[in-house]
Amino acid sequence: MGSRSLRIVLPDDESVSQELAHCLPDGFLPRRCYNKALRMAELSHFRKDGSVRMVDVSAKRATARRARAGGFVKLSAEVLRRLPDNPKGNPLEIARVAGIAAAKQTSALIPLCHPLPLTHVDVQVRVTPEGVAIESSVATQAVTGVEMEALTAVSVAALTIYDMLKAVDKSITITDICLLEKRGGKSGVYLRPASLSAREPAAKRRPPAKP
Amino acid sequence: MGSRSLRIVLPDDESVSQELAHCLPDGFLPRRCYNKALRMAELSHFRKDGSVRMVDVSAKRATARRARAGGFVKLSAEVLRRLPDNPKGNPLEIARVAGIAAAKQTSALIPLCHPLPLTHVDVQVRVTPEGVAIESSVATQAVTGVEMEALTAVSVAALTIYDMLKAVDKSITITDICLLEKRGGKSGVYLRPASLSAREPAAKRRPPAKP
Amino acid sequence: MGSRSLRIVLPDDESVSQELAHCLPDGFLPRRCYNKALRMAELSHFRKDGSVRMVDVSAKRATARRARAGGFVKLSAEVLRRLPDNPKGNPLEIARVAGIAAAKQTSALIPLCHPLPLTHVDVQVRVTPEGVAIESSVATQAVTGVEMEALTAVSVAALTIYDMLKAVDKSITITDICLLEKRGGKSGVYLRPASLSAREPAAKRRPPAKP
Amino acid sequence: MGSRSLRIVLPDDESVSQELAHCLPDGFLPRRCYNKALRMAELSHFRKDGSVRMVDVSAKRATARRARAGGFVKLSAEVLRRLPDNPKGNPLEIARVAGIAAAKQTSALIPLCHPLPLTHVDVQVRVTPEGVAIESSVATQAVTGVEMEALTAVSVAALTIYDMLKAVDKSITITDICLLEKRGGKSGVYLRPASLSAREPAAKRRPPAKP
Amino acid sequence: MGSRSLRIVLPDDESVSQELAHCLPDGFLPRRCYNKALRMAELSHFRKDGSVRMVDVSAKRATARRARAGGFVKLSAEVLRRLPDNPKGNPLEIARVAGIAAAKQTSALIPLCHPLPLTHVDVQVRVTPEGVAIESSVATQAVTGVEMEALTAVSVAALTIYDMLKAVDKSITITDICLLEKRGGKSGVYLRPASLSAREPAAKRRPPAKP
Amino acid sequence: MGSRSLRIVLPDDESVSQELAHCLPDGFLPRRCYNKALRMAELSHFRKDGSVRMVDVSAKRATARRARAGGFVKLSAEVLRRLPDNPKGNPLEIARVAGIAAAKQTSALIPLCHPLPLTHVDVQVRVTPEGVAIESSVATQAVTGVEMEALTAVSVAALTIYDMLKAVDKSITITDICLLEKRGGKSGVYLRPASLSAREPAAKRRPPAKP
Repeated sequence: MGSRSLRIVLPDDESVSQELAHCLPDGFLPRRCYNKALRMAELSHFRKDGSVRMVDVSAKRATARRARAGGFVKLSAEVLRRLPDNPKGNPLEIARVAGIAAAKQTSALIPLCHPLPLTHVDVQVRVTPEGVAIESSVATQAVTGVEMEALTAVSVAALTIYDMLKAVDKSITITDICLLEKRGGKSGVYLRPASLSAREPAAKRRPPAKP
Repeated sequence: MGSRSLRIVLPDDESVSQELAHCLPDGFLPRRCYNKALRMAELSHFRKDGSVRMVDVSAKRATARRARAGGFVKLSAEVLRRLPDNPKGNPLEIARVAGIAAAKQTSALIPLCHPLPLTHVDVQVRVTPEGVAIESSVATQAVTGVEMEALTAVSVAALTIYDMLKAVDKSITITDICLLEKRGGKSGVYLRPASLSAREPAAKRRPPAKP
Repeated sequence: MGSRSLRIVLPDDESVSQELAHCLPDGFLPRRCYNKALRMAELSHFRKDGSVRMVDVSAKRATARRARAGGFVKLSAEVLRRLPDNPKGNPLEIARVAGIAAAKQTSALIPLCHPLPLTHVDVQVRVTPEGVAIESSVATQAVTGVEMEALTAVSVAALTIYDMLKAVDKSITITDICLLEKRGGKSGVYLRPASLSAREPAAKRRPPAKP
Repeated sequence: MGSRSLRIVLPDDESVSQELAHCLPDGFLPRRCYNKALRMAELSHFRKDGSVRMVDVSAKRATARRARAGGFVKLSAEVLRRLPDNPKGNPLEIARVAGIAAAKQTSALIPLCHPLPLTHVDVQVRVTPEGVAIESSVATQAVTGVEMEALTAVSVAALTIYDMLKAVDKSITITDICLLEKRGGKSGVYLRPASLSAREPAAKRRPPAKP
Repeated sequence: MGSRSLRIVLPDDESVSQELAHCLPDGFLPRRCYNKALRMAELSHFRKDGSVRMVDVSAKRATARRARAGGFVKLSAEVLRRLPDNPKGNPLEIARVAGIAAAKQTSALIPLCHPLPLTHVDVQVRVTPEGVAIESSVATQAVTGVEMEALTAVSVAALTIYDMLKAVDKSITITDICLLEKRGGKSGVYLRPASLSAREPAAKRRPPAKP
Repeated sequence: MGSRSLRIVLPDDESVSQELAHCLPDGFLPRRCYNKALRMAELSHFRKDGSVRMVDVSAKRATARRARAGGFVKLSAEVLRRLPDNPKGNPLEIARVAGIAAAKQTSALIPLCHPLPLTHVDVQVRVTPEGVAIESSVATQAVTGVEMEALTAVSVAALTIYDMLKAVDKSITITDICLLEKRGGKSGVYLRPASLSAREPAAKRRPPAKP
């Protein structure tokens, strides 16, 4: 994602969309502007009476949409040391496949999610000195986005790692499940602000909020 | 659960079981003892050649088993402020139900999980100043435990909250998914050590719902 | 099931259980008695704060349980006349099998249902002058009953009949889905009172399969 | 739906399509005309030998399609009186969500249904003096219609209401499950004739066929 | 499929595509040519490091695609003699429907399969002197093919026949599950070479490889 | 399984059970005896009128049951040569996991199968000079057997291998899916007669029936 240099002309604070607000570095905009964007955002999953609903996307056009999500399984040094004992590295491969399969079940798990004809699901796992970093990537050609599919893939991959290692350590913790990127659709691009992305690729970065 | 006062006589460091090691306060045992327990632990989900397997529980006796898991959905102050706008508090209720339903799908999501006749699933959600704390509780009368069911319930409840709020904030992060308690079965009781169970290293905060 | 002659001594109105109240013929007990039984009934699917929950059946003993449910697909004379055109009578056979298969998915459809190891599911269909009568029978050896499985089997069998005939008549109506009988478990036997079980108030018609 | 005033010129009784026949008020056409339309209707789910089949919609064009279905859960006055005791009205909200989720499982329940990428599912519930009226609305952009999805949503919402209230009254009956409206596709609009629509919105209407 | 007379001018062995190689009669091309085609074929389900992946079809255009698959359930003369005892021929009809339903679950069974909006699934069964021949046909309008759906339909139809007859003969064998035909998509038409198609339609043909 | 030396005293041909008939070497019993056993076998999945049914196992006692099934994926020499190119051997590992996961879905795929709480599922794959041999092993503590689960595991593992290799060879054939062994339950032990078991363990054995 490296350095994003966007040239933005802001004629009026009010015109900053919610999506844009999220993409900008923290502090880039005055706070009141961000808040305003947030307040205006459509609370699309709720009716006026507060009851939940599935968003009606019938009038939207099918376009290419992608999403990336991340997550982290914290492993103690002892458990990590056990992983290389495994000649084939299979546990992480099984977790990858479980995550891919789970993405396809997203609409059966999340009540208000639309069923989508996914064109691609990938899950990557990477061993770090503190545990296993998981990253998913999902694509579709559809009328709504695939954020939930990407997040579900990461979550189930992480649960599968827990399942296979729980015999050696029940205190394993799954953390930092978040959307990293979203492209396509009316709301355009979302990139998780660097200030929020704990534990992501960069090795030198100190995870700010988690131990 | 409050104060646990266990009287333990340790004739030999080597005899400390892995389960016991986990239940004891950090530092209670010398480190080499903990490591030894861990090394001896059966890596039950792997064959000798490193390939994965489902644990064979055919010879085990069906007994009462329970597990509790926790997780946290971090919400910005802005998003939290929106929640009370909802006259019925439904989003959290839908998340609860989605978590309960997901627990029943655990063996369809986690490849090496046994299908179990669950006798109870509950999911609790609690709004805190930093987001929504989720806690699940699952029970069965079966030959293996329900840790994965409890963790799956929490994960899907958290994903459902994300789904319903993603229109207002895509940077919502799911964190601290972990096993809080496990009872029943040969390995006995596991209670997440207090030193681990805080959501974040913040020392001043007293985790209200977890021991 | 024919004629049920129960000898009941009622020392006190208050002591009539809800289950008993249901089994008795209408008018057998004074109304206030029935109401009282109802008020006392445990609203088992709700917490004190009104939020829903799955009933905890962990402490219950697995016993033999059975349930029968019924339903009716009203077909116009024209559509009924078409059915015999089918040399194999398959549509109703497919509906039967769809109902049996659906019973096994009950806990995946009804959020607070327990997953149960069903030992038997049957669905019967019978052509009548007014449409197709459906009756299901489900059994298990478990800690809770199979009413919902029996009702789900009937519902999906009825929907499958609709699906196969909707090309000739979209106004087909599914009606009278109800529990006919329940046996086993603490609450004992429930038999749908004859006064309720008629498909329609037509006094002359004797419901052949329902008591 | 109110008053529909369609101007129809019928050059020949034979040319009245089945769909049209259904949309017209009862008695609008001579009976023989209706019968003829019915006889001509394609029995699309059956082969010539009477065995069932899935309709081949490969050559059809994806267009916007919608369907509305209705159903009714009859509750005794006693049970209805209990509902307001619930401070949050949750049972009906859970039923709504269960119905929405079930619509997405339709093709897994009804053997010959096509899997469709639904763009919207909604379920409404309304307490009436005689019970709970359920109405679903489903939309897709696809090659075939969503009648079965709408009917499945209503059926499972009704079953969920039964599940949550069965502890207080096992004699609850589900009735009047029917298609209310269908739009899109070659066959055009279907509106359930008012003469058939028991228990629908209109308060003054006397349900003709059910007690 | 009958006699296929393709006029092919081969300017260079190297230019023979894999697909073409498969469609040609055995021995039509020199062996080295076939091998070369095979080596060049994209191993689309694997990354460079050998780990598996779902093929990314996001950039492909939705086109009409069809596939046919076959399979055979070998039955002893004794078991075959029992089949006509069945007045309705239902077991094979149930197997057909189970195969159709299973095709819709393909992406939930095969980890790297894409979920596809199937427009048609059919399964045919035919009693032969040696057992039951099964043939499926699946169609979609999508970005990838339906070979796996066709093969899954055949496999589950065969398993269902086994299930219903296993009480009379546990030694029933399922064999010859293979792709018969594939149309649509970039790779074009595949027709299983006659030299490979054991047990297929032609009555006079002696199954070359199996007894 | 090696050499089975059973001492059997047959006082009367008629008393040979079907199960026993299957376990005996071919030719061990006079044919009429085998036929008789077969005729007496309960056609448990059919009613008297020929319609299908789920077997009622409500009265049976839960006992330990196991089943083993086998299958074979025939691969050309060219495709087999590609397999070792894969540094991790993953495709077969993914197939194993897909087979294990599928066993848990058996009752959702095979209409008349009972849902069972499986205590173990394993799938083994072995590369041979002619393709990949698959063997599954399933166990439960239940009221009915797990033959279908074992056969489903093998079938889906085979389909998954096909899926991952279809890009290099669409003519891959799945064959020899059969029950190898069954233990537990009233009918006792079934061992597939050696004369039928093509392609099984023994390396020296020439697959008798297939090329």
